[in-house]
Amino acid sequence: MSRGAPRSVTSRVLAILGAFSAERVTLGVSEISRHTGLPLTTAHRLVGELVRWGALERDDAGRYHVGLRLWEVGSLAPRGLGLRETALPFMEDLYEITHQNVQLAVLDGAEVVYVERISGPRAVSVITRPGSRLPLHATGVGQVLLAYADRDLQERVLSGPLRRFTGNTVTDAGELRRVLAAVRRDGVAMCDGQVETFSLSVAAPVYGPADTVVAALSVVVPAEGTDPRTIVPPVRASARGISRALGWAGHRSTHR
Amino acid sequence: MSRGAPRSVTSRVLAILGAFSAERVTLGVSEISRHTGLPLTTAHRLVGELVRWGALERDDAGRYHVGLRLWEVGSLAPRGLGLRETALPFMEDLYEITHQNVQLAVLDGAEVVYVERISGPRAVSVITRPGSRLPLHATGVGQVLLAYADRDLQERVLSGPLRRFTGNTVTDAGELRRVLAAVRRDGVAMCDGQVETFSLSVAAPVYGPADTVVAALSVVVPAEGTDPRTIVPPVRASARGISRALGWAGHRSTHR
Repeated sequence: MSRGAPRSVTSRVLAILGAFSAERVTLGVSEISRHTGLPLTTAHRLVGELVRWGALERDDAGRYHVGLRLWEVGSLAPRGLGLRETALPFMEDLYEITHQNVQLAVLDGAEVVYVERISGPRAVSVITRPGSRLPLHATGVGQVLLAYADRDLQERVLSGPLRRFTGNTVTDAGELRRVLAAVRRDGVAMCDGQVETFSLSVAAPVYGPADTVVAALSVVVPAEGTDPRTIVPPVRASARGISRALGWAGHRSTHR
Repeated sequence: MSRGAPRSVTSRVLAILGAFSAERVTLGVSEISRHTGLPLTTAHRLVGELVRWGALERDDAGRYHVGLRLWEVGSLAPRGLGLRETALPFMEDLYEITHQNVQLAVLDGAEVVYVERISGPRAVSVITRPGSRLPLHATGVGQVLLAYADRDLQERVLSGPLRRFTGNTVTDAGELRRVLAAVRRDGVAMCDGQVETFSLSVAAPVYGPADTVVAALSVVVPAEGTDPRTIVPPVRASARGISRALGWAGHRSTHR
């Protein structure tokens, strides 16, 4: 969008929708104009059409947010499908490198849902299967998804009971807060024996085309005899590969 | 859309997005053309632009579904906000009529989340508060939300353990299946003493502008001395009132 204003009306409408992000949940018309490169009058007219349809809503302060109707239409996306198809070749490569469990998970409510797993005879046993669910605080993928989730969900998880699976499980809200901050700083979660004592997982965020975290990728390895730092680079590289294949174009700056 | 093809490019793009629904999760271009009234060539061109942006995705059979990127943008909607503001006056009217607990709830994962409640000194006590959560199978609002949820979620809940709160709680999958079918047939759930023995709830679906169920409205009354059938008409009327105020235009036919 810094490459100049979009040309076709369709691309202008889509550029307006794309101006919203987790960091920019509400926008004024002048901000929309700035983020899209559209003239203020054009932005004003298109925003009006989007509001009439319900794609955007205007709040009392005169700012705009994504509307209920667009949320409804978006919720029709068979999310796991395209994600799994795109992720599978990258997950196979990661399995070839590590010969350990490679997992892909998404957020659903306040839980992790595993949508895909590749494993083999030499891999450490794990309790998860595609479709199975775990709480967010105790797994690598869960800590990644929680670290990038909206504040409401974070506070809800932090204020709730944090179930203890092993002596290593993070069950203290203050400690979990520090873990999540470290995940955001490093772009990776290292979760050592927090679900089962004999395994550890290294997880990284997968970004979608709108630059929000849409999934988490992890490798689960035996806790004994593995230096998790050797797993970090391939997991991060594969997660970025999946993100690129999904249409992610790198991080957008918050202020432009 | 039966009023002829939409005129502006923006309204054409939005009409294509609006052609998708819970009953029409995937569409071919000719179906999109039929549902929107757009000429086939126009539909083809606009669908192409929507696919390039990620608003739609094409499957192996050449049919289209809502894409990951639109799901991402849609998930930025501060859903509870507009819903609560719109619903409150209707909920106040319903409270004036019943003087009992009036509740509004939405689906989150496999649970009910209460987003608003109006109560008074004469109302029966309830265990819920705004922000609190309950499983889907045991409450009126939960049975409504589950009845209209996607099949995956229904099967997940039906196959999981169904927690018993009281002797009346539906804990048998076969019985819950029949309850959900009755909710879809009648447009109302009557949940008698399934969470606490001394109260019953009557719940009805709230529809959004895209004709999917976005929330459930209920009145909780004392189980003793109340004929739930007298509560059904006002609950249904208020739920329809909220739906209309949200932009719902009545049920769209599945085949047009």
